[in-house]
Amino acid sequence: MNSSAPIGVFDSGVGGLTVVREIMRQIPDERIIYFGDTARVPYGSKSKETVTRYSRQIVRFLRQQNVKAIVAACNTASAYALDEIEKEMEIPVIGVVKPGARAAMDVTENGKIGVIGTEATIGSQIYTRYIKQYHKNVTILEKACPLFVPLVEEGLLNDPVTDEIAMRYLSSLSDSGIDTLILGCTHYPLIRSTVGRVMGRGVTLVNPAYETAHELRAVLEKEQMLNLSRPGLGDNQYQFFVSDGAEKFIRIANSIIKYGILSAKVINIEEY
Amino acid sequence: MNSSAPIGVFDSGVGGLTVVREIMRQIPDERIIYFGDTARVPYGSKSKETVTRYSRQIVRFLRQQNVKAIVAACNTASAYALDEIEKEMEIPVIGVVKPGARAAMDVTENGKIGVIGTEATIGSQIYTRYIKQYHKNVTILEKACPLFVPLVEEGLLNDPVTDEIAMRYLSSLSDSGIDTLILGCTHYPLIRSTVGRVMGRGVTLVNPAYETAHELRAVLEKEQMLNLSRPGLGDNQYQFFVSDGAEKFIRIANSIIKYGILSAKVINIEEY
Repeated sequence: MNSSAPIGVFDSGVGGLTVVREIMRQIPDERIIYFGDTARVPYGSKSKETVTRYSRQIVRFLRQQNVKAIVAACNTASAYALDEIEKEMEIPVIGVVKPGARAAMDVTENGKIGVIGTEATIGSQIYTRYIKQYHKNVTILEKACPLFVPLVEEGLLNDPVTDEIAMRYLSSLSDSGIDTLILGCTHYPLIRSTVGRVMGRGVTLVNPAYETAHELRAVLEKEQMLNLSRPGLGDNQYQFFVSDGAEKFIRIANSIIKYGILSAKVINIEEY
Repeated sequence: MNSSAPIGVFDSGVGGLTVVREIMRQIPDERIIYFGDTARVPYGSKSKETVTRYSRQIVRFLRQQNVKAIVAACNTASAYALDEIEKEMEIPVIGVVKPGARAAMDVTENGKIGVIGTEATIGSQIYTRYIKQYHKNVTILEKACPLFVPLVEEGLLNDPVTDEIAMRYLSSLSDSGIDTLILGCTHYPLIRSTVGRVMGRGVTLVNPAYETAHELRAVLEKEQMLNLSRPGLGDNQYQFFVSDGAEKFIRIANSIIKYGILSAKVINIEEY
């Protein structure tokens, strides 16, 4: 495998761009091929079987682009599909769940960790199961926040409605004495300030996007696969593919990443 | 075609059940086969190409069940895909847009009609284009309300948050002097009371679900295809198929239809 090959990153839609943003920041010489499954978004309300089938199609597409590593920048896909996909692959496959969970274990002082995410991620209890393997005595409180994704996609990032919904979802967590909260959905860093305000200063927010980029860098370094020279101008360092609605994707993407995304290509992911 | 054959009804998810409810009420002897595309919901943010491809797959599935007529109980599918599908079919195909638009033309006294719907339905301007064919001088104001579907699916039917969002979406319509408002998304009848309160008494709400069932009855009558005897007990008069998440579908479905839906079968719609 060529170290100058791109990294494949996928998500159900635009949320995974918060992970791309971190990869761009932490390992700026890497090429990235991003796929957002905008035709079939959201994954958070779908079953394990469906999310796994969709993830496999995307992985097949990314492999055809000769990626050197794959990042599942989606908590739902990481929770439901990653273990199976990892087994079948000979290149590194990294999800957002494990790096986020490990960071929370490092951060917590009182051993009480909260997790927020989509219905699917929370229903899978993946964070609880993973953390319990290492720390049996940690208390983990999970809470699904299904309206956060549509509110973010509607652009209500600083808005009284988002505040009100956040207070409803988070009040039980905020009263529970946790000192650490995992933002277990890639959309949530975009309403980090609202969540932080509701939770108060005593709670550290863990953003798995940051931790995932950090782990990706470590894995590539270990495998001697870091790209050694920055791609030149006009070299298409970052390429974006979606399953629907390229224009809407570009509009939202440019509000997440300050890079200037000019184009996204639509592919029929059901053919993969 | 056998008049005792079932009617095929489809929607992107559960919203189309408001149309099923009306068909059950208005022509209670008919059999119904319902398909909800719960794996790929929502349609309202997808492109015309994608919605048309998905609708064709569903129509192929319904044809295999030997339905005698097809109802696209989804405004987005009706707006984007129906004209093309209708041309290819030798059985009646009915959407929700035309019956709703015709009812609004009948109801309005001042010639000012409002339409609310998903981004896709409103972006297509289907209601405006259809009504303008008949009444050039009618004024039509359209407004997308993208958060209504997730709010309904979260069960916030009578809730201050839904009130607040409704006031934001509807204030410009409510100040515009319309006397008729088309509920241009099959989820919206479920928040009819909230919408009605914001719009005030001077505005008549048109529910295309009611009008669609009415038109279906008229078409079947004209073609002498009405079922002449009520199916017996244990005869599976109503059958439900979904592309994902049967249990969640059954739970929401039973809150919309008081019939007692006991089962829904999951199929892989991408194979059709």
